Amino acid sequence: MIDFAAKKALFHLPDGVTYLDGNSLGPMVKTAPAAVDKVVQAEWGEMLIRGWNKAGWMAQPALLGNRVGRLIGAEPGTVVLGDTLSIKVYQALASALEMNSKRRVILSDTGNFPSDLYMAEGLCRTLGGQYRLKTVAPEEAMAAIDDSVAVVMLTEVDYRTGRRHHMADITRRAHEMGAITVWDLAHSAGALPVNLAGAQVDFAVGCTYKYLNSGPGGPAFIYVAPRHAETARPALSGWLGHAAPFAFDLSYRPGQGIERMRVGTPPVLQMAALEAAMDVWDGVDMAEVHAQSLRLQDQFIKGIEARAPMLQLATPRSHLMRGSQVSFRHPEGYAIMQALIAEGVIGDFRAPDILRFGFTPLYIDEDDVARAVGVLARIMDYGTWDKPEFKQRAAVT
Amino acid sequence: MIDFAAKKALFHLPDGVTYLDGNSLGPMVKTAPAAVDKVVQAEWGEMLIRGWNKAGWMAQPALLGNRVGRLIGAEPGTVVLGDTLSIKVYQALASALEMNSKRRVILSDTGNFPSDLYMAEGLCRTLGGQYRLKTVAPEEAMAAIDDSVAVVMLTEVDYRTGRRHHMADITRRAHEMGAITVWDLAHSAGALPVNLAGAQVDFAVGCTYKYLNSGPGGPAFIYVAPRHAETARPALSGWLGHAAPFAFDLSYRPGQGIERMRVGTPPVLQMAALEAAMDVWDGVDMAEVHAQSLRLQDQFIKGIEARAPMLQLATPRSHLMRGSQVSFRHPEGYAIMQALIAEGVIGDFRAPDILRFGFTPLYIDEDDVARAVGVLARIMDYGTWDKPEFKQRAAVT
Repeated sequence: MIDFAAKKALFHLPDGVTYLDGNSLGPMVKTAPAAVDKVVQAEWGEMLIRGWNKAGWMAQPALLGNRVGRLIGAEPGTVVLGDTLSIKVYQALASALEMNSKRRVILSDTGNFPSDLYMAEGLCRTLGGQYRLKTVAPEEAMAAIDDSVAVVMLTEVDYRTGRRHHMADITRRAHEMGAITVWDLAHSAGALPVNLAGAQVDFAVGCTYKYLNSGPGGPAFIYVAPRHAETARPALSGWLGHAAPFAFDLSYRPGQGIERMRVGTPPVLQMAALEAAMDVWDGVDMAEVHAQSLRLQDQFIKGIEARAPMLQLATPRSHLMRGSQVSFRHPEGYAIMQALIAEGVIGDFRAPDILRFGFTPLYIDEDDVARAVGVLARIMDYGTWDKPEFKQRAAVT
Repeated sequence: MIDFAAKKALFHLPDGVTYLDGNSLGPMVKTAPAAVDKVVQAEWGEMLIRGWNKAGWMAQPALLGNRVGRLIGAEPGTVVLGDTLSIKVYQALASALEMNSKRRVILSDTGNFPSDLYMAEGLCRTLGGQYRLKTVAPEEAMAAIDDSVAVVMLTEVDYRTGRRHHMADITRRAHEMGAITVWDLAHSAGALPVNLAGAQVDFAVGCTYKYLNSGPGGPAFIYVAPRHAETARPALSGWLGHAAPFAFDLSYRPGQGIERMRVGTPPVLQMAALEAAMDVWDGVDMAEVHAQSLRLQDQFIKGIEARAPMLQLATPRSHLMRGSQVSFRHPEGYAIMQALIAEGVIGDFRAPDILRFGFTPLYIDEDDVARAVGVLARIMDYGTWDKPEFKQRAAVT
């Protein structure tokens, strides 16, 4: 059993803030500042170049890969950290397409995070136009998998609505139809139980700065199933993915297994923050985290529907179709979210009309949810969002 | 006139260390730990998601791009930070190839950093085999530019020998022959005067963790000439390169100018360290830095050739053909470098036989060079490198 109160004490949460935006940028664990400072001063400052061996910087992407891997049901040695999620999407997709190159269609859905679609679009154009990206509505994704589909590329949990795909069923269907799967776990890793090995997923990618608390710009990760690890070709074939990076050969030879998915020099400072966060995540049972998240979500939905019925639920009611966030729609969603943030309840807004709230039980509890419901209900009751300062959009929304 | 002693006082250099490896990983400026800690605690910790606007994280890649840009002769608004150098090579190369797609050859040289060659190889294979990477010896690069060449992709300063290409002449020749240029400035930015605008370079890329002191895994940069900025297509088309990232459109539209070369979420902690370093670099005259580096290099060459003649100079003698490093060859180079490091003189080794030494005048002075010469001469005189502990290779060499 997770002692949620004890876990909450491990996070730094600013005074007066109820933070329901861990699905966008997770808060800091209390040990992160010292961990980062140690890497800066005691390692970079004192060891200089020797830090690559002496402080183990070079091995971090794979070591942290195993720790993240445990949370997503990955076999040891199948996950590596690095780059951004968009880059990892490109890498996985290019490898997957090459494995199934007689087919021409990348299938995705309109609920996928746009950057995944953009990267796919860019790859198709680079490949010269014979491939195409086909997007269908999320609920039609399963039925759209036919024998023209080379790769099924989906994000398990919709970044707007929180709607969750059935990863195992879709993967099974994809394999029956001869397609390869690329799953984006941006809203899954650290949010809900994922079983990549059990579902026989081919490739998966994700980020660590949301539910895994690695800080702004923390590294992404990539998973390659063991059965593909020695055959997948990394289209982004950088020196740290080479079989012998320090031999400085003129020709590329892919490294062993997942190591080949490394590209360039890892972001050592960001890795330090992730490592500190993983100390909190190690040993955590994701089924229990998700069950608690669903309880908090239900408390929130019930409270809002009772007290602010003008907000329309955008998240499926079924627990089986939910991730770790709840979204409501309102035409004035942007201004409402600004009014809410001004009162210290932080969620976020996604165009055109979605208010998103993340329920992350390691640091959010029933009292936080009660407060959020109360503040949001009051804002709706009094219409306090209807002020010019709340309507003016910031650069990042 | 640069006050070199005053600049040196701004860097943290460990006691007993003479650091001639700033060409691999630059040392820390003294303000870096506090700058990083501020971003971790006061920004991430307290502002959480609001940091993207409030702390200006989202604007950093372009603001820092201008500051790096000044050192490499780039026009304002033509440089942006992000990703790793390998990724930026791929991005520049893919864009350049598409601009010249009737031709089939990427020309590079065998002195280029292998990762650049690997990324090019990977791109060629992704493009389906009709393109090929041709590498010639560095001294033959100019003559090898003919009308079959789509893109000339070179690193200005050779990572092993320190040999410097004539960027302006090669670029002029490339343009005469109808080729596009991609210059890698890994060993140029912060090392010597670069004039991208004056030389009419098309694309340039580089890293910041060497001469620019951004710390291990610091972000890379990319330059696109203003004449290409609105037409170059980013093959790695991520959401932060979109014209309206927060509109979450389903289709990609490239952002204005250099902004389109952004891909995913920037590494905010690494950016903070770079920003601290740029405070030291702002206003520095690169011609003066390079002139002083050449004086230090000459002092070193003269000292070693007089006192350790068994080491063979690998760097050209001409100042016009030198970057900011000096390399010597010796069949036992690896063990010699280990023996040197054990005595606190840090350079590095590059297979098969190169000992590299970086001369970075902002924190290296004549006394450091004299010490390095003395220690290396003594190691060679007494043969102290000939011990088993110096011959055992570490993971990162």
